[in-house]
Amino acid sequence: MISFNNDYGQTAHPAVIEAVIKAQGETFPGYGEDEACDAAAQRIRSLCGAPGCQVHFLPGGTQANLTLIASVLRPHQGVLCADTGHIASHETGAIEATGHKVLTLPHQDGKITPAQIQDFVARHRADDTREHMPQPGLVYLSNTTEFGTVYTAPELNALSACCRQLNLPLYLDGARLGYALAAADGQLSFSDIARCCDAFTIGGTKQGLLYGEALVITNPALQKDFRYHIKQRGGLLGKGFLMGLQFKALLQDGLYLSLAQSATTQALRIRHAFTAQGIPLFCDSPSNQQFPILTAGQMASLANAFIFARMMPLDDNRWLARFCTSWATLPQEVDQLLKAIQKLDSIKA
Amino acid sequence: MISFNNDYGQTAHPAVIEAVIKAQGETFPGYGEDEACDAAAQRIRSLCGAPGCQVHFLPGGTQANLTLIASVLRPHQGVLCADTGHIASHETGAIEATGHKVLTLPHQDGKITPAQIQDFVARHRADDTREHMPQPGLVYLSNTTEFGTVYTAPELNALSACCRQLNLPLYLDGARLGYALAAADGQLSFSDIARCCDAFTIGGTKQGLLYGEALVITNPALQKDFRYHIKQRGGLLGKGFLMGLQFKALLQDGLYLSLAQSATTQALRIRHAFTAQGIPLFCDSPSNQQFPILTAGQMASLANAFIFARMMPLDDNRWLARFCTSWATLPQEVDQLLKAIQKLDSIKA
Amino acid sequence: MISFNNDYGQTAHPAVIEAVIKAQGETFPGYGEDEACDAAAQRIRSLCGAPGCQVHFLPGGTQANLTLIASVLRPHQGVLCADTGHIASHETGAIEATGHKVLTLPHQDGKITPAQIQDFVARHRADDTREHMPQPGLVYLSNTTEFGTVYTAPELNALSACCRQLNLPLYLDGARLGYALAAADGQLSFSDIARCCDAFTIGGTKQGLLYGEALVITNPALQKDFRYHIKQRGGLLGKGFLMGLQFKALLQDGLYLSLAQSATTQALRIRHAFTAQGIPLFCDSPSNQQFPILTAGQMASLANAFIFARMMPLDDNRWLARFCTSWATLPQEVDQLLKAIQKLDSIKA
Amino acid sequence: MISFNNDYGQTAHPAVIEAVIKAQGETFPGYGEDEACDAAAQRIRSLCGAPGCQVHFLPGGTQANLTLIASVLRPHQGVLCADTGHIASHETGAIEATGHKVLTLPHQDGKITPAQIQDFVARHRADDTREHMPQPGLVYLSNTTEFGTVYTAPELNALSACCRQLNLPLYLDGARLGYALAAADGQLSFSDIARCCDAFTIGGTKQGLLYGEALVITNPALQKDFRYHIKQRGGLLGKGFLMGLQFKALLQDGLYLSLAQSATTQALRIRHAFTAQGIPLFCDSPSNQQFPILTAGQMASLANAFIFARMMPLDDNRWLARFCTSWATLPQEVDQLLKAIQKLDSIKA
Repeated sequence: MISFNNDYGQTAHPAVIEAVIKAQGETFPGYGEDEACDAAAQRIRSLCGAPGCQVHFLPGGTQANLTLIASVLRPHQGVLCADTGHIASHETGAIEATGHKVLTLPHQDGKITPAQIQDFVARHRADDTREHMPQPGLVYLSNTTEFGTVYTAPELNALSACCRQLNLPLYLDGARLGYALAAADGQLSFSDIARCCDAFTIGGTKQGLLYGEALVITNPALQKDFRYHIKQRGGLLGKGFLMGLQFKALLQDGLYLSLAQSATTQALRIRHAFTAQGIPLFCDSPSNQQFPILTAGQMASLANAFIFARMMPLDDNRWLARFCTSWATLPQEVDQLLKAIQKLDSIKA
Repeated sequence: MISFNNDYGQTAHPAVIEAVIKAQGETFPGYGEDEACDAAAQRIRSLCGAPGCQVHFLPGGTQANLTLIASVLRPHQGVLCADTGHIASHETGAIEATGHKVLTLPHQDGKITPAQIQDFVARHRADDTREHMPQPGLVYLSNTTEFGTVYTAPELNALSACCRQLNLPLYLDGARLGYALAAADGQLSFSDIARCCDAFTIGGTKQGLLYGEALVITNPALQKDFRYHIKQRGGLLGKGFLMGLQFKALLQDGLYLSLAQSATTQALRIRHAFTAQGIPLFCDSPSNQQFPILTAGQMASLANAFIFARMMPLDDNRWLARFCTSWATLPQEVDQLLKAIQKLDSIKA
Repeated sequence: MISFNNDYGQTAHPAVIEAVIKAQGETFPGYGEDEACDAAAQRIRSLCGAPGCQVHFLPGGTQANLTLIASVLRPHQGVLCADTGHIASHETGAIEATGHKVLTLPHQDGKITPAQIQDFVARHRADDTREHMPQPGLVYLSNTTEFGTVYTAPELNALSACCRQLNLPLYLDGARLGYALAAADGQLSFSDIARCCDAFTIGGTKQGLLYGEALVITNPALQKDFRYHIKQRGGLLGKGFLMGLQFKALLQDGLYLSLAQSATTQALRIRHAFTAQGIPLFCDSPSNQQFPILTAGQMASLANAFIFARMMPLDDNRWLARFCTSWATLPQEVDQLLKAIQKLDSIKA
Repeated sequence: MISFNNDYGQTAHPAVIEAVIKAQGETFPGYGEDEACDAAAQRIRSLCGAPGCQVHFLPGGTQANLTLIASVLRPHQGVLCADTGHIASHETGAIEATGHKVLTLPHQDGKITPAQIQDFVARHRADDTREHMPQPGLVYLSNTTEFGTVYTAPELNALSACCRQLNLPLYLDGARLGYALAAADGQLSFSDIARCCDAFTIGGTKQGLLYGEALVITNPALQKDFRYHIKQRGGLLGKGFLMGLQFKALLQDGLYLSLAQSATTQALRIRHAFTAQGIPLFCDSPSNQQFPILTAGQMASLANAFIFARMMPLDDNRWLARFCTSWATLPQEVDQLLKAIQKLDSIKA
């Protein structure tokens, strides 16, 4: 069985493991206050062209999301996001557990628009009974989105301008940020992200690390006392230096982006194969996640040799499936999938 | 400089790293639902003689504490613990952030007694105004304690009997459980812990892993739906299999305990050296943390070559210091410290 | 100006005020542990045919909702309700502030169905990734609903059977329960409510009291320690006896229902007037709230002499308005409104 | 039996009830946005000499405390207070339920000092591991304190200066503020309170109202969006106008202070009687609560005719008792108590 199930099924890129191996015998200060973390943070600041940004390393994405969001919002505020946003749909109410409502906007292929934000906020502020509703206090985006789509630099510029005009901080969940940058094909850079967002993550777990997400806070008003929050929420690891070592290795010599590019290249081959076979895709994803709509027969056929996600049943007895490549996906694995897809035409649903 | 600063300053034991290296290229299911986690959990069940216990792997100790405690308590309940307990003193109000008060009892060398628990609960239950106070809903112990002291099997038996008689679950924070077992020198076993506690952790981070704590839930009433809680608090790592791989390696062939024993042996050499030099110890710790009371001169002298923790100033211009050994401490490092301690007599305070 | 703005704009029914006046000079025990509260609770138990139910008096409805809901749910659980439910739409995220997500179902005229609940829960329980989503832990209804519609006894029976089969407690927000009972015109009784629900409120504020809601807990499993929760959330008033005195008066000699019936009678006159005038109603409300859809011109005309709520603009430049009667509404006030409605035909939109 | 049990055992002062009666038939806007609330707020602004302060009316003291405190603190912050402070000891963990730790300082007769605050904060800020502890974010005082003692104007000036120098807001729980002002005998005024505190309450429930506390926010930085918080925590009553009506009546013509003065006068008679009888008082309370230390025999003797609080058993088989007067206490009731106290000498313990 070959797995296209997700992008967190393998340990880590050899360069990352090598960095861990090399540190054996060395002694590091605790809680991320070490030179490896400093160096990794410095590398991120350079990549982002944001010398004043704060960088923290947390073990997981849900934790990064809940820690940042809860640190920004006042008790009566909620966070605006797409109804498909990870915090709205797949984090077991983690944001609510910190006391805040997730205020959802209907997504379009996983994305939301400045007009939607503007409209929601304007209606809230104009409502005489607004004190009876949570106040929007932050905007959450994910990039890539949960459907593999990508906010490009012009889109982020517009979202950022909208948020600043409304005086709302903008937070971007970059659990798959590398795949977004790779998919945008030059139309999106780390510095675009840093310029547009008040805070964002640079995903590690899904991009080649053993574990770890870099949380970057560009807005100085949101930086104060942030390490207290990390500790309080359980994300301040004693051996934080290990995340510093790993990120330092992953961000060296363009490795982060070249791994993401390789995953995207393989994903686009899969997309093309489905399309060529006349199999529709749920949305136009340019990144490492592809969402074909399969008949039961097609699904059964592919499931003989491949592991992939059955996202949800659709109304017409078909299924929304997901095929996910990663930094670790081999071209020859995709070759085999392509052959199987090309045989699908003879299958009855 | 030689570090006796803490027990989480080095990467991991070679056998642990080796296990991670060996898994390269393999594909694992996500979120800890993999064979490595299963095998590690099975090993823990065997060690504990508790075939029905649940085992979860979380990245850090604060997260394990807050997730378990918040899952057990109802909103109006608090958790009883020593005023020196980690959750009371060094987790930035993580328990309170989940809505619960930490109800502290005065410690004796980091420990609390059944009589204290009994008395607190009896007074609460007899108080006509008890509804105006949080209800004790759980007891928290750490073993070793924050002062390196150890609850032995007879002590845990008594605490457990007290808690069961009062219908209070008992939770033991075992961030340094290996060091406790080693220090108890045969008077305490995994199965003692499992028999006495409703839930407990087996620390990994401080005992030779890169990261990770095993949370063991022995009481079936506390097991239900627990993975939801882990996800909600941010502790369900996508690559959970890495903690399975590491724990499996650490729990093989008695490695966990032999590493802890080695640390304890070195710590007792340090203790003896201080005592021989007439330098008092804050308490009688049999484990890997030793707490000498040093004059400013003694502290300065040792700080020339060694890194250690200055815990707090005492009233008489002396300081409470901490020297901590670990699974990675080398005998020759302790040799050097011993020489330095032996020279301390000529130092004026 | 005559107000049809809401049902909490006047002090209290004379019998309620009289009960307060009469108590002057008497001394009562604090925190609701007095004979007046006991007597009012006993009256409620009798009305409900539920001798084992617990009755608590809280000052407001949002507080009753959040206290009950937070006491029932475990941290990973959410509460199912209509997307128009008061807790979802008009309590400033009060439920989320206690850590729980409100899981919304699309309403039909403010109501939800057993099939919707069944479907949501079945999909949750069948989902392999369910641990990444809040677990449904309670169902919330309001009766009357936010659109004035009413769950009748057969509907509540079906909802109750569904919830019990799914092992989900059922909570009914009865801020306007009297108006629901009056509107159901014999098809719904206190004992129907008590039989079908695990907990519910009997609204006082909107039904003739100065303030206060009776929270009735019929399910013994939800009764334990409940007064701790009330105190913790700030709802345990020192002078709780005042709510006992008021409820005792309001529940005497059928006053509660006769006041509600009077309000309903007046509301139905208003409904008929709108319908006779060819003005559509948003939904078929049999109770004290009526929701006509008005043109701007109609709204302006009525606003000359009457106060009423402008709920929200509709897509076609019309508005959803609300006219609300109460226990205090006088027939002659409605006479005047009827005359004004009858003149609306000559108004251009 | 004559009750000296507490100061919330009777309905309300006749002038307050009269104000409620008079409003019958009138229609008021909801949620405290009415002229009665405006007028009461204006009266408070005048009394306080604080034209810019915000005034809100909430039904109870615990709710006022938790709403204000949770609105001020960021998630990683705690509130400093005396270990006897109401929020620390008698609100069922209400503050913790909003996510924040109560950081206690040892009281002296219920009070804390600027030196204690300064010392706690200085140690926190100097601690290298401070991120592992909650950050002090607010100071809570009660006046009168839980032991009836009073912070005078010079003491509050010093506390306020200390807090401002440390950049910590100061909040004063004035559930018994009238009794404090009366006891201070000219050494403390509303404007002293308003000048020294960033927020405070003016108690109503214990000072002659049916219910209600006025929450005054003098610091503009703490005023923003406050009504959202009240709604979220359940304290925004639909019939808020009733609290406006009551406070307006209570604050008219010096009634608030004259009622408090009367209670204090009677309490001092009781104090003198105990002292004259050689019965020690727990502390030197100048206000409406008196805390004699009684033998079991003395307690039994007084319990024959009087209701009072048994606070806690002391080590020597004696009890700490509380006798509490109120705005409603009659001189002839105290006459009888005095006679009973004078007979105590012949009782054997």
